[in-house]
Parts: sequence; C-alpha cells; structure tokens
Amino acid sequence: MKVQKFTITDASLERSPGQDADVFVGNLVDQRHGAPITIGYGRYGPDQTLEETIAVDDVVIMLEGRLSVSSVAGTVTAGPGEIVHLPKGQRVTIRSHEQGALTAYVTYPHWQEARE
Amino acid sequence: MKVQKFTITDASLERSPGQDADVFVGNLVDQRHGAPITIGYGRYGPDQTLEETIAVDDVVIMLEGRLSVSSVAGTVTAGPGEIVHLPKGQRVTIRSHEQGALTAYVTYPHWQEARE
Repeated sequence: MKVQKFTITDASLERSPGQDADVFVGNLVDQRHGAPITIGYGRYGPDQTLEETIAVDDVVIMLEGRLSVSSVAGTVTAGPGEIVHLPKGQRVTIRSHEQGALTAYVTYPHWQEARE
Repeated sequence: MKVQKFTITDASLERSPGQDADVFVGNLVDQRHGAPITIGYGRYGPDQTLEETIAVDDVVIMLEGRLSVSSVAGTVTAGPGEIVHLPKGQRVTIRSHEQGALTAYVTYPHWQEARE
C-alpha cells in the first residue's frame, strides 16, 4: 500500500448494517486493501439511536456534531476534535443530537469480517 | 477496557522520539492498556519537517491546520476532516505549514513497541 489521503467525498456511504437508523458508513481502507485496519467515515442523521455490541476495537473521531455513547461505564458525549474508544465486546447505545454528526473511524481488525 | 472519551487536554504531549522538530505526540491508549491499538493526539509547530520510516500502520486524522506528506506515491496535503493513511514500511517526509497542525492518530500495532 502507498500513502493515501481521504476526504468525505471519497466514501460511498451505506446504511450501517443490521440497523434501520439514519446512520451511514463508508469504508476507505478495509479487508480488500491488505492493511490490518479499516478506515472510514460515518454520518449520523439528527436524533438517531443505534444499539450495538462492538465486534472489534473501534475508534471514533468526531468531526462535526455530537454523539452520546452509553455503556456499562456510563454515558460520554463527544464533539468535534474529541475521540471515543469503543473496545471490543462492549454493548453500547450511540445517540446523535439534533445537528447529526460526522465521524472518522478506525477499527482493528476489520469490522466487516468480524460481523460475518 | 471500557468506553472512554478523550479530548486534547487528556494527552501529555512529548517531543516525537528521534526528532528535534517541534512535533509532539501524546498517547491516550497504548500497550499499557490492553487494547491492540494506540490512540493519541499530535501537535505540529509551524513549518516543521519530520522524516520517518513508518514502523506500523498509522492513520492520521486532521483536526486543525494542514500537513503535507511526501512519499514514493508523491505528495498529498490534508486539512481539517481529512485522513492520511501511512502504511507500515513507507518512507515519508511530513511537513506542517505556517499555521501548524493538530491531529488524532490511531496505529496498529503499538508504535512505541515497534520502535524499540
């Protein structure tokens, strides 16, 4: 692989699998490309809720808007420039606020393979 | 590990090892914590240059300012909200511009262990 730069327009956003919320994800680097990590962008509509058991270590970097993540550790709310680490195995509820949210994410290993 | 939120003030920034440039990095999650990835923030002073062979897969998410990364693939310049993937083994020159830069990074495996 070579050094690559990505921007939101490089991502083909699709509805987050197994969900009917307005939450869309687009991988930029994943199991197709030979690196051990998945890199992508996520977009959340306003006031959406997503419940999930995290299958991989997932790092969410907030670019726009805010997300609140509830787990056994309580609830954290993150906005632009902040980072949320969702460790593998955690059961979480992720809520967007009225302005929605844009995130970048990095997972190890590949989340699509972990879901299969 | 539990779900955690991080902000720039959580990072203890130290000069990037093996460099004398004004480039500072602060891990938030690393080999001390049991997850397979390292998460941190990086801060670049104005007009700094850093040459490095990338020891791990390194994902840099631009939060403020701009960085230009030169490699065998040419030069890419990234600004806020953009992502640069630095694959393991690449020789790169990273340059900040006049306004400096703030980044979030995620590496697999842990970059500090890979350097030892």
